[in-house]
Amino acid sequence: MLIVMQKDATPQQVENVVARVRSQGLSVHLSQGAERVVIGAIGDDRSVSKDQFMLLEGVDRVLPILRPYKLASREFSDTDTQVKIGEREVGGNAVVLIAGPCSVESRGQILEIAHAVREAGAHALRGGAYKPRTSPYSFQGLGAEGLELLAEARAATGLPIVTEVLATEQVQQVSQAADVLQIGARNMQNFALLHAIGETRKPALLKRGMSATVEELLMAAEYILSHGNRQVILCERGIRTFETATRNTTDINAVPVLKSLTHLPVLLDPSHSTGLWQFVTPVARAGIAAGADGLIIEVHPHPEEALSDGSQSLKPERFAELVRQVRAVAEAVGRTVA
Amino acid sequence: MLIVMQKDATPQQVENVVARVRSQGLSVHLSQGAERVVIGAIGDDRSVSKDQFMLLEGVDRVLPILRPYKLASREFSDTDTQVKIGEREVGGNAVVLIAGPCSVESRGQILEIAHAVREAGAHALRGGAYKPRTSPYSFQGLGAEGLELLAEARAATGLPIVTEVLATEQVQQVSQAADVLQIGARNMQNFALLHAIGETRKPALLKRGMSATVEELLMAAEYILSHGNRQVILCERGIRTFETATRNTTDINAVPVLKSLTHLPVLLDPSHSTGLWQFVTPVARAGIAAGADGLIIEVHPHPEEALSDGSQSLKPERFAELVRQVRAVAEAVGRTVA
Amino acid sequence: MLIVMQKDATPQQVENVVARVRSQGLSVHLSQGAERVVIGAIGDDRSVSKDQFMLLEGVDRVLPILRPYKLASREFSDTDTQVKIGEREVGGNAVVLIAGPCSVESRGQILEIAHAVREAGAHALRGGAYKPRTSPYSFQGLGAEGLELLAEARAATGLPIVTEVLATEQVQQVSQAADVLQIGARNMQNFALLHAIGETRKPALLKRGMSATVEELLMAAEYILSHGNRQVILCERGIRTFETATRNTTDINAVPVLKSLTHLPVLLDPSHSTGLWQFVTPVARAGIAAGADGLIIEVHPHPEEALSDGSQSLKPERFAELVRQVRAVAEAVGRTVA
Amino acid sequence: MLIVMQKDATPQQVENVVARVRSQGLSVHLSQGAERVVIGAIGDDRSVSKDQFMLLEGVDRVLPILRPYKLASREFSDTDTQVKIGEREVGGNAVVLIAGPCSVESRGQILEIAHAVREAGAHALRGGAYKPRTSPYSFQGLGAEGLELLAEARAATGLPIVTEVLATEQVQQVSQAADVLQIGARNMQNFALLHAIGETRKPALLKRGMSATVEELLMAAEYILSHGNRQVILCERGIRTFETATRNTTDINAVPVLKSLTHLPVLLDPSHSTGLWQFVTPVARAGIAAGADGLIIEVHPHPEEALSDGSQSLKPERFAELVRQVRAVAEAVGRTVA
Repeated sequence: MLIVMQKDATPQQVENVVARVRSQGLSVHLSQGAERVVIGAIGDDRSVSKDQFMLLEGVDRVLPILRPYKLASREFSDTDTQVKIGEREVGGNAVVLIAGPCSVESRGQILEIAHAVREAGAHALRGGAYKPRTSPYSFQGLGAEGLELLAEARAATGLPIVTEVLATEQVQQVSQAADVLQIGARNMQNFALLHAIGETRKPALLKRGMSATVEELLMAAEYILSHGNRQVILCERGIRTFETATRNTTDINAVPVLKSLTHLPVLLDPSHSTGLWQFVTPVARAGIAAGADGLIIEVHPHPEEALSDGSQSLKPERFAELVRQVRAVAEAVGRTVA
Repeated sequence: MLIVMQKDATPQQVENVVARVRSQGLSVHLSQGAERVVIGAIGDDRSVSKDQFMLLEGVDRVLPILRPYKLASREFSDTDTQVKIGEREVGGNAVVLIAGPCSVESRGQILEIAHAVREAGAHALRGGAYKPRTSPYSFQGLGAEGLELLAEARAATGLPIVTEVLATEQVQQVSQAADVLQIGARNMQNFALLHAIGETRKPALLKRGMSATVEELLMAAEYILSHGNRQVILCERGIRTFETATRNTTDINAVPVLKSLTHLPVLLDPSHSTGLWQFVTPVARAGIAAGADGLIIEVHPHPEEALSDGSQSLKPERFAELVRQVRAVAEAVGRTVA
Repeated sequence: MLIVMQKDATPQQVENVVARVRSQGLSVHLSQGAERVVIGAIGDDRSVSKDQFMLLEGVDRVLPILRPYKLASREFSDTDTQVKIGEREVGGNAVVLIAGPCSVESRGQILEIAHAVREAGAHALRGGAYKPRTSPYSFQGLGAEGLELLAEARAATGLPIVTEVLATEQVQQVSQAADVLQIGARNMQNFALLHAIGETRKPALLKRGMSATVEELLMAAEYILSHGNRQVILCERGIRTFETATRNTTDINAVPVLKSLTHLPVLLDPSHSTGLWQFVTPVARAGIAAGADGLIIEVHPHPEEALSDGSQSLKPERFAELVRQVRAVAEAVGRTVA
Repeated sequence: MLIVMQKDATPQQVENVVARVRSQGLSVHLSQGAERVVIGAIGDDRSVSKDQFMLLEGVDRVLPILRPYKLASREFSDTDTQVKIGEREVGGNAVVLIAGPCSVESRGQILEIAHAVREAGAHALRGGAYKPRTSPYSFQGLGAEGLELLAEARAATGLPIVTEVLATEQVQQVSQAADVLQIGARNMQNFALLHAIGETRKPALLKRGMSATVEELLMAAEYILSHGNRQVILCERGIRTFETATRNTTDINAVPVLKSLTHLPVLLDPSHSTGLWQFVTPVARAGIAAGADGLIIEVHPHPEEALSDGSQSLKPERFAELVRQVRAVAEAVGRTVA
């Protein structure tokens, strides 16, 4: 970390900062600028509070040099991490497609969709049993029954299951039914949940919070990684901005930015990042063109009957068309769709 | 809800929408505009999915008319709700001041601060035992031990305790030590937690999420209210914007906006909403001037030693000065500080 | 427009609103809902102030039904507008590539780049003669001399010229040297400038303001169109959000959203929308995959010597590689690069 | 500026950066950290491009140390600048109130309002003659005739005039009628206009752009200051965020932040920063409580007839009440309303 002193800082104030840097087990490098002194604190300062320096007399700013995450960084691992979803690896050359309804609504519905998306080319089935809904008056998911229906759909189609965990007490139960534990955007900084999932050895699909920076997403991944679970998949699902024409704003930059900062695989969820089915396919193509390792897509045979997220769900035949278009783009950028 | 048809919608498409509106138990009012047909769906449609209409052929837009929250609205209750914190009521004419450290760090620290803030005029003590930290490598709070220390501080000073609950499994334990259960910004949409706190009869202090709209904050309150807990206090704590000069942007508008939309009391947390102690006092004054029912302020005797949030913590003597200034502003707007 | 009355609005208040609607030459359609009356104002109300109704006693909200732009809308014109840049058409099946330096810096520089980008496959040359710079101490462009150098580069390479106009008094002068008048993001709502460019018959390349909605971009286009200039090209160049890993956030959703709302051609500027050369090529690919009609890219032979925007400039050989990759993606989505 | 090298930067790459730093007339200070080398570039680097270093091989990040503005900074001038509006000084202990309609609409309207706001306690009259409107179909202001009516209102009431300049070619004409030249939010980065106003010796009221950072606002002020005009008043008028309950989000933090960074006076415009008259008075009180040097408020006798901004305009009697309330708050914070 670098500590920039105020223009008029006294030698005593500089001394004081230097002493505190040393007291934290860091060494010191002093630099006298044209207008200010800059104090370099040398050593691994990831667990040292920056605030303590901000508050010393004569300090103007504190600039971190090391990135706050470690296990998630490219500097920690040169090789791209590949995470298994069923028999596929996410993070390799082949693009992985996860598809299914927002919520599991009934046995008929989930089986119909599971067959349809497998036929269209999906590699895994998504579907929510426990649903985080902004209104207490909306459908909250089928819960345990939904998990059983997902297990049945897996048995019927062979597709591995991706489903969301909302609370620490659900982790064990959901782990039995699911191949991948999804952490939703609203829980990206539910640290108790991240910790609990870090204790499992199930692949985790971590969605970016709707106002989280890329760095905070990587810190959330670090929580899981630091508790021993190395199978983390990141997912861009749109951020909140002033734009109201779409439900969220797809931060397409985040795809290559994440690929440059981390070795973890990166998915795009164009269903949530647009919120309108009309724009899902073009944005899905964009995600693959930008370098995403896969997509997660909401599909429903009768979107107008869906109990949640109907507006952003594709009908199975439109999903099949999406797969065709995505395959063409994947090949154009030197990748395949398995 | 109003359903605006596309310019070129066919009579058959209009028919189709009308039929679906009726199938949801709503009645229909048709309006033929200059360019478009607008279909009014009449009845309480809070639990009716808007998406289903968006997806029907010929529909351009769906405009909700009813607000999505009910129990939290001014229309539900004309009278301002007053919530007890110890023996004080939040939401009446007297402004309530909650102060204390970000985290409980030690017996000595919490007792020293408790005495100091009581002396300076605080009505309740805040302090985190379970801490949500963005880095897994940062101090995570003292947990159960912290709760015991808070209980001891209450016994020593008589100040009621406000402390955060991070997970559903902590609700019971924290309820024993705390007078008010705080729900942090990162958990504003942790619906499992909201539900669990809704089942208690403890006052809840609900912080606005850092990218939550005012409406979403009210929907989160609705979760708690709808499970039977009517003692909810709202708290503006800054939102995330592009501005980087401060940690967050204090949405001061939210104070009078919330007071106009809801009967629940509204606090401001200028420590988090600015992130820098230099700006806490002016923004605290602004909060009271705008009509807030109270403040929650971080205080630490040695901010540069604080294990968290030192940059935004006031020293006790500065907090005492804040209380003096806030009292003057409160009186200028016809209120008191108890 | 629809006027939603408050829950407790009196018949007299409804009468009053109805009378005012009629006084504006609109007719009225009344709808009695479960809780509220909704008044439909029927007729073309684009030039009628909505505010006047907001302020009448008993009114809760005013909801516009018609989009505020007309000439820019798909409803005005079914056919995609194609705008000529030199001999190419932007907005047809072939993707158009505009490339060049941020600023014209010298005769040698602009000629070298012009030849390089033409060779690499660009169809037009960009380069700023008048530069809007956030610091008064930064290089402000070569002005008139820059325009002459651009004209010379056109003569030498045959590439049409795209360059920015900063002020109404420059419109005539820049029109002589330029084939396309660029309106920068900071001037998207410089209405005097939009008006002046609307009076010319030069193609205009209108960049989205950094906090402008898609609707505001279309309203800015409407200014130009309504003054008679129908040759408007829209350009997404990134918006401002809380994310700091990149200079701006590429709103990739805006590409298909704009294509659905307007008949005007849509470009992407991945240089500004990312701000870092490393991410320009993947985001350029994403833009074409999402349906953009072309790209505008900053290229400089020695980015580290560039007087502006060096960080986001590609070297010519990297631009050539971008063209190859973009061509592959264009073909994958059924388009060509001319 | 500090240049942080990548973890694996070679000695040759460090050498190369050092050479370039020296070539810019800066001296060098090298610091070898635990993981990385940091190169300090010492000297006044405000006019040195940071980009050139970003692009050198082995460079990870470039961190500016000096603030980019100089004349606007507190370090440049210890004393608060006071700017004259008529016979009052903005920036001293007395709070200054500017009030009037959004647009000058007619002789009767502007004279009526001028008398009303003077009576209520305003010190200056605002009113737009040239109006920037988002729709080309909306009222665009009376132009030159509006300026004459403002001059007449000044003659009749003695109130100095604050009115907006939209384009460089209007500067001279508006300067004749106006005591203060207002630069609107949409023109905050219209550098041609800032330059032109910098050449005058008229006080300038510079509004923050709706997505401008505090630093960018100060850089815009620097444009005016650096061209010789030292009479600049800053104005917070709300920023754009995801919140839709109000037209903009009042960044109340910006008031004390600006007061700490600059010697220039700071106003708040609660009419634009809320967009709804109901919230203007509480937010006006908050502004003064936070330390603003004055307010600019929209007033209209018949807001429902206003040709623009009716929703956010106060009736004269409500403005008189605002003045009373603001006076009480001003006194509570040790200031006066003249």
